[in-house]
Amino acid sequence: MRRAVVASADALGVSSPNPAVGAVILDAAGDVVGVGHTQPPGQAHAEVMALRDAGDRARGGTAVVTLEPCNHTGRTGPCAQALLDAGVSAVHYAVADPNPSAAGGAQTLRAAGVAVTGGVLEAQVRRGPLRYWLHRQRYDRPFVTAKIAATVDGRIAAPDGTSQWITGPASREHAHRQRARLDAIVIGTGTALTDDPSLTARYPDGTLRGHQPARVVMGHRDVPAAATLRDGVAPLLCVRSHDPHAVLAALPDALHVLVEGGPAIIGAFLAAGLVDEVQAYQAPMVLGGGRGAVDDESVATLPNAHRFRRTAVEELGDDLLIVFVPR
Amino acid sequence: MRRAVVASADALGVSSPNPAVGAVILDAAGDVVGVGHTQPPGQAHAEVMALRDAGDRARGGTAVVTLEPCNHTGRTGPCAQALLDAGVSAVHYAVADPNPSAAGGAQTLRAAGVAVTGGVLEAQVRRGPLRYWLHRQRYDRPFVTAKIAATVDGRIAAPDGTSQWITGPASREHAHRQRARLDAIVIGTGTALTDDPSLTARYPDGTLRGHQPARVVMGHRDVPAAATLRDGVAPLLCVRSHDPHAVLAALPDALHVLVEGGPAIIGAFLAAGLVDEVQAYQAPMVLGGGRGAVDDESVATLPNAHRFRRTAVEELGDDLLIVFVPR
Ligand SMILES: NC(=O)c1ccc[n+]([C@@H]2O[C@H](COP(=O)([O-])OP(=O)(O)OC[C@H]3O[C@@H](n4cnc5c(N)ncnc54)[C@H](OP(=O)(O)O)[C@@H]3O)[C@@H](O)[C@H]2O)c1
Ligand SMILES: NC(=O)c1ccc[n+]([C@@H]2O[C@H](COP(=O)([O-])OP(=O)(O)OC[C@H]3O[C@@H](n4cnc5c(N)ncnc54)[C@H](OP(=O)(O)O)[C@@H]3O)[C@@H](O)[C@H]2O)c1
Repeated sequence: MRRAVVASADALGVSSPNPAVGAVILDAAGDVVGVGHTQPPGQAHAEVMALRDAGDRARGGTAVVTLEPCNHTGRTGPCAQALLDAGVSAVHYAVADPNPSAAGGAQTLRAAGVAVTGGVLEAQVRRGPLRYWLHRQRYDRPFVTAKIAATVDGRIAAPDGTSQWITGPASREHAHRQRARLDAIVIGTGTALTDDPSLTARYPDGTLRGHQPARVVMGHRDVPAAATLRDGVAPLLCVRSHDPHAVLAALPDALHVLVEGGPAIIGAFLAAGLVDEVQAYQAPMVLGGGRGAVDDESVATLPNAHRFRRTAVEELGDDLLIVFVPR
Repeated sequence: MRRAVVASADALGVSSPNPAVGAVILDAAGDVVGVGHTQPPGQAHAEVMALRDAGDRARGGTAVVTLEPCNHTGRTGPCAQALLDAGVSAVHYAVADPNPSAAGGAQTLRAAGVAVTGGVLEAQVRRGPLRYWLHRQRYDRPFVTAKIAATVDGRIAAPDGTSQWITGPASREHAHRQRARLDAIVIGTGTALTDDPSLTARYPDGTLRGHQPARVVMGHRDVPAAATLRDGVAPLLCVRSHDPHAVLAALPDALHVLVEGGPAIIGAFLAAGLVDEVQAYQAPMVLGGGRGAVDDESVATLPNAHRFRRTAVEELGDDLLIVFVPR
């Protein structure tokens, strides 16, 4: 199952709106003979990829899948049927499909005489790449990560506006690796006009990574025709609103969205209760002036502060990445 | 030697201006028979305390001391002589005494036939409780720790001024434990007038810890007669200046000083290059408004930021304590 989870990470960003699922096929002797993950919409699901990889060796073997195999015929055939056709004799999955139209795969397999076990490493799998799709199934909106990259005293720019680079190369590479797994990145018109960012996922040498997230700019002002955001490398979406709900509504297929700033945009998502995770990159410096990382006028007094639970602390070169979820 | 370092920590704050030294006596069989640390000025040094603890069992034994035993007769007799009188046959120490008037202890002991080894675990001991005194010997001023207790977005108060409590009980207990080992705490008149703080070192139940640091207020305004800082529990020093050098000059016996704020005071010490360590307590909340942790107008642009190297990250309940030294 751990191997299936690792495989599923490669589906992040590319499988949306379908879940990032991973599958592993073991032959009758228990050796891994096939690995797969969900392909882009309309293409093969994880089980089918893993079965193709395994070929004949799947017969009499076991399929290990992060999500219950689907039972419905959409643009692709049902995975439960594909597993039966391949002749696997056992299926282990972690999470039952909460989607009524796709559920029932376990039942179909059992009815055909396959030994089916659900709930395998379920808690762990729910926190992995499946997390974003499960969130969308439950709340009908994408999982939202707010990113803050600031100094120890919480500044994202010096008084003269200089902000490149507060964080170091290890943090920036980490951020680019994450971008390649996202559906969309949201910024405000202020950042779009001031920084002319590209928001692309790149390797340290500047070349583009495989998957590029959509670029979303919120606010009433225009993004100029000459802006890098209009270079066509990834879709651009302009949401002429100050309402974070409107931004998420404009992304009906997105599973995971990153809100990159500036401070007003992070504040608006926090105030709307639409932040599911905060990633705070802390650079080991103090500015003593300049923009703070978050502007949110809705918090006037300490008891109304946005409160979080820390879930991870990671060293990224000289910087620290601290991850929080709302309390 | 590790045992001697642990013992020396109890001398912090109380031994000043003398170094916080620890000593352990082993008998001829190698068993620990005495432990001691430096007492307040005019009273016994660590070696003498450990020898008293050991009594006759020191004869033929070994003394392990964090600092080279002193050779000079001040208010207390020379420790080298005390070790000879007790009949120890070996002395191990970590750090040679950089102070010419006290140095020579090792030579005196060797001349009397004692087996003397210097430099034992020296690097480690230099980073321990001796650090503050070694700093004063070298730079002729106390070691300065700047403390920041802020939110993830670097705020120390909400827009309405509320700031109690941003950090949790574990952070506050940690801070009080540290206070009991300090010589002085520095705040600005702003904090003195706004918060009416006590700056005492207390146990969680509110009772006073053994040692209390001096309270230092910097700025031109008066501390009112009714202020808690005037309750006599610890000395109060008012330095009517905005110059951090003047504050340190007013503390000629201090080895370790904590600068607690507010933001202007932290900024002034940073701008003056007088911060040797930053302790940043980070509470898992976002305010989106309110005072930033540091005000320093001397930094206008990113290349002039105060840069640090992170030396420790510690979880204190829900908070994180991150420690930095200047780069
Ligand atoms: N270190 C980091 O992590 C990071 C990340 C991003 C940006 N930044 C920095 O942030 C700075 C830009 O900050 P900024 O405040 O000018 O830009 P911003 O937060 O990106 O954009 C602010 C603008 O967005 C529009 N907007 C949309 N929704 C809004 C809402 N709910 N509330 C308020 N305004 C809303 C408004 O413009 P309209 O009039 O067009 O509606 C507003 O002026 C730059 O210096 C950039 O480098 C830093
Ligand atoms: N979370 C924390 O770690 C923490 C710690 C301490 C304070 N605080 C908060 O900080 C707030 C108080 O901030 P504050 O700025 O009013 O107080 P402050 O920084 O304590 O004091 C500022 C005052 O100190 C004097 N001063 C002395 N040296 C100065 C210098 N080099 N530069 C500028 N001023 C100097 C000036 O007053 P004169 O006119 O008298 O010279 C100035 O107005 C309170 O809300 C308090 O709760 C938070």
